Amino acid sequence: MEALTARDTQPAARNVLFIMADQLRRDYLSCYGARHLATPNIDALAARGVRFDNAYAQGAVCGVSRMSYYTGRYMSTHGATWNFVPLPAHNTTLGDHLRTLGLRVAVVGKTHVIGDREALARMGAEALSPAARLALQGGFEPYARDDGIWPGAAVPAGNQYAGYLREQGYAGPNAWHDWANSGRGPSGEILSGWQMRWAHLPAAAAERDCETAYTTRRGMQFIEECGEAPWCLHLSYIKPHWPYVAPDPYHRLYSPHDVPSPVRAPEEREQGHPVQQGFQRLAPGRNFSDDSRRRHVVPAYMGLVKQLDDHLGVLFDFLTRRDLWKSTLVVFCSDHGDYLGDHWLGEKELFHDAIVAVPLIAVHPGADARRGAVEDRLVEAIDLLPTFIESLGGTPPSHQLEGRSLLPLLLHGECPAGWREYAVSEGDYAFRSPVRHGTGQPVDACRMFMLRSHGWKYVHYENLPAQLFDVRNDPHELCDRGRDAALAQVREEHAQLLFGWLRQRRIHPTVTDREIDGWTAREARAGPHIGVW
Amino acid sequence: MEALTARDTQPAARNVLFIMADQLRRDYLSCYGARHLATPNIDALAARGVRFDNAYAQGAVCGVSRMSYYTGRYMSTHGATWNFVPLPAHNTTLGDHLRTLGLRVAVVGKTHVIGDREALARMGAEALSPAARLALQGGFEPYARDDGIWPGAAVPAGNQYAGYLREQGYAGPNAWHDWANSGRGPSGEILSGWQMRWAHLPAAAAERDCETAYTTRRGMQFIEECGEAPWCLHLSYIKPHWPYVAPDPYHRLYSPHDVPSPVRAPEEREQGHPVQQGFQRLAPGRNFSDDSRRRHVVPAYMGLVKQLDDHLGVLFDFLTRRDLWKSTLVVFCSDHGDYLGDHWLGEKELFHDAIVAVPLIAVHPGADARRGAVEDRLVEAIDLLPTFIESLGGTPPSHQLEGRSLLPLLLHGECPAGWREYAVSEGDYAFRSPVRHGTGQPVDACRMFMLRSHGWKYVHYENLPAQLFDVRNDPHELCDRGRDAALAQVREEHAQLLFGWLRQRRIHPTVTDREIDGWTAREARAGPHIGVW
Repeated sequence: MEALTARDTQPAARNVLFIMADQLRRDYLSCYGARHLATPNIDALAARGVRFDNAYAQGAVCGVSRMSYYTGRYMSTHGATWNFVPLPAHNTTLGDHLRTLGLRVAVVGKTHVIGDREALARMGAEALSPAARLALQGGFEPYARDDGIWPGAAVPAGNQYAGYLREQGYAGPNAWHDWANSGRGPSGEILSGWQMRWAHLPAAAAERDCETAYTTRRGMQFIEECGEAPWCLHLSYIKPHWPYVAPDPYHRLYSPHDVPSPVRAPEEREQGHPVQQGFQRLAPGRNFSDDSRRRHVVPAYMGLVKQLDDHLGVLFDFLTRRDLWKSTLVVFCSDHGDYLGDHWLGEKELFHDAIVAVPLIAVHPGADARRGAVEDRLVEAIDLLPTFIESLGGTPPSHQLEGRSLLPLLLHGECPAGWREYAVSEGDYAFRSPVRHGTGQPVDACRMFMLRSHGWKYVHYENLPAQLFDVRNDPHELCDRGRDAALAQVREEHAQLLFGWLRQRRIHPTVTDREIDGWTAREARAGPHIGVW
Repeated sequence: MEALTARDTQPAARNVLFIMADQLRRDYLSCYGARHLATPNIDALAARGVRFDNAYAQGAVCGVSRMSYYTGRYMSTHGATWNFVPLPAHNTTLGDHLRTLGLRVAVVGKTHVIGDREALARMGAEALSPAARLALQGGFEPYARDDGIWPGAAVPAGNQYAGYLREQGYAGPNAWHDWANSGRGPSGEILSGWQMRWAHLPAAAAERDCETAYTTRRGMQFIEECGEAPWCLHLSYIKPHWPYVAPDPYHRLYSPHDVPSPVRAPEEREQGHPVQQGFQRLAPGRNFSDDSRRRHVVPAYMGLVKQLDDHLGVLFDFLTRRDLWKSTLVVFCSDHGDYLGDHWLGEKELFHDAIVAVPLIAVHPGADARRGAVEDRLVEAIDLLPTFIESLGGTPPSHQLEGRSLLPLLLHGECPAGWREYAVSEGDYAFRSPVRHGTGQPVDACRMFMLRSHGWKYVHYENLPAQLFDVRNDPHELCDRGRDAALAQVREEHAQLLFGWLRQRRIHPTVTDREIDGWTAREARAGPHIGVW
């Protein structure tokens, strides 16, 4: 009887559909205010659930951000400080936690996880054993893992999407690149989408064979295959990430006239922060700062977003037909955004809202009262994993997870006591040696820490001035107040927040808070009894 | 010819003898100023090499300190925050690093390492495989691992020292406790050394069968067994740690009159720091604050130190006979000290010099010019692992190791540029729930950070006043200036040092600094080429 009551007051989800887009800017979705393109299916998802308007990714590059999503831990704690950095072996992942709760946990699409093979070897684990394979995949069953981005001569053996393309008759050692990510010249020559100049061309592959369409189908296939067994699917679209090549008709839906003006000010370049200037001087920043190039490329990005929205429509219809909304927690998010010329920058890596303020929509089956709600509290990507665990009836392990369950917000719009006053995002620009050389810093002094409080965004750089943005009065973050003497106190307050945050990291993944709390009692029972007369 | 020259200028060691005592106070060694007992063999070691007078352990309990010695990383980075906390799987250890250099690396005695079995299971490693067994032992071949401290009914199966005692005819399910760590009453009854009142009794076992004698013999046995093959032996004495029971004649060498006065002031108790007061109220603090009890116990502690010194004499003679000094780097240290009533405290856990200022003596075979040198620069326990690696001709991996090689100090007394300005030690008092309850702090707010600069010792406590000691004018640390308004600036300076230290932790064990530095060049060669027009 008690169990029934508990279930009535807090309905549990049975499955988790964890959808992520790669490099998707929030303001390119109409539910987040985009006027230059419409994303009715993502908008409909927001209408079904809660849209978070202040959600922050924990990193400004794929690897850092994703490892935080997957481990529920900040970069300072998980230790994967850039792309392609193996996830250190002390981390547990979403797969570990949800599998324990009885779900089959798989990925379709991209994760960017590199396993810690050195730790495997150290422990004598057989890399081909089922457990090791899972560990190397960051805890996800690689149902259709396709990390992609293979501009070279070949994709790795076993890549499923490349295999699919071959089956469809697309020829060449790297059909992914040559067909899905390239256009064709007048004589049929391959024009690589990695060159921005070809962004206006349609992909050489048919739309139904491009990544977004394929990924959606594989995702639905996984869900069908699971039948009545509970599942978690990380449906992880590789688009609208580079290369900016959209298949027909998406390559021609938008014109240069549809491209919104860049968000930038001359001072950002002339008196900008040294790290920001360093990134502005890299190829993406230089080319996106050229308006004609920018207007040439962004329509393709928009087409890729539109394609994604269309396929999410297909997916959501599938969920409706299968009656899965009532049992499935559905989350949509992005790992980070794309500068697209804002702030004289291309790509990502820094902490403007264009990059780290990510879209986040969550639809909980039991949250009828919250349909269409908008939540403006500060939330973080690392909040998702404890939300999943709690929604499934589990208890998030507080010694490992650094985020907070959003379930009270999803179900009742209630703010748990002491909700966070700032969000954190981190990075390390040492991986970009031209930027580092421009600052004169050694490799080990390039960690960046962003704190976004209610009124301010503060970015700490080692041995360099901080950045500070007044997000209330300067929402576009055009005016860096990091050297404004009148705001020294604000910077100091944020430095103190960062200091406190650093002291509170969850550094002990191998002992629970409960064990710590019970240590003295346990010793009193079992000994050793030290100090007895 | 070049190789000869290189060897001449920086002679490499071939073996490493890494001797550690447990809970040994530095000021109970005559080379460190003890007047109440003589330790001629340790003094002779100091005369052969370099004695460090400002060496700090990275933790104030065995587990934290030892994991720092073994990993070359601070507690904030290795994550083993107290005794019995499994060493998280992302750490590499002394064994891993030195084995790579071709040495056989073993322990005789205690390590306190608990392996990360959850990570092993996560990776599907077979716990009985050779690699997993090494990982579970913190990288040490358990040649004769005897962690000890088993006051209960039995010692674990396979404990070698317990087996040895059985072979010698010592009866009972826990001969270690009943014979080596207990005395006998008038009717032959077992009087446990875990009770301080029996500290005056001799151990029931013969001296040659007690831990220190046995450990020394096993250590020499290992060295003999290695023959010409290079080795690293962690010879890790469990004494003079509790229980305070010395075998005959060591139990009667010192009397209550030989015991030095306690270092303490009334204000330390009356207006002491809340955390310090919490520890003062625990049994060890209460009993050691009673002078008659203290004078009853300390002679046994002194006897154990004397016994250790005598056996080190045997060991050093053995090294001489085998002509091993010319090929072996010999280090002697302690994991931490013992309050023995100083500051109204017993045991350890806090950051007075009695605990964290450890003895450290290093004898490098090639450092003839430095015999008998005294080094007062601030060094840390984590400096040993890079010293070992460099002495053996290897290169310390800077992305994992946080200490600095002492080799330049050992060989030439040279201070590498930018030597540290402060030493750090850490702890977590949440494991002592009565202390925590006294402060009213939650489990996750009990981390302690000590910074010892040239002039000050600063201890940060979350949500509580800091402690501050003027180590030049108050070398006994009797006057806590943590609430002295006149020193607010000094505290703030040390808080800023701590803030900077926290930002610089080596959080990425899976990617080297060299790989980071070379990333851009690698990408320029291999792609992806992002941002190209």
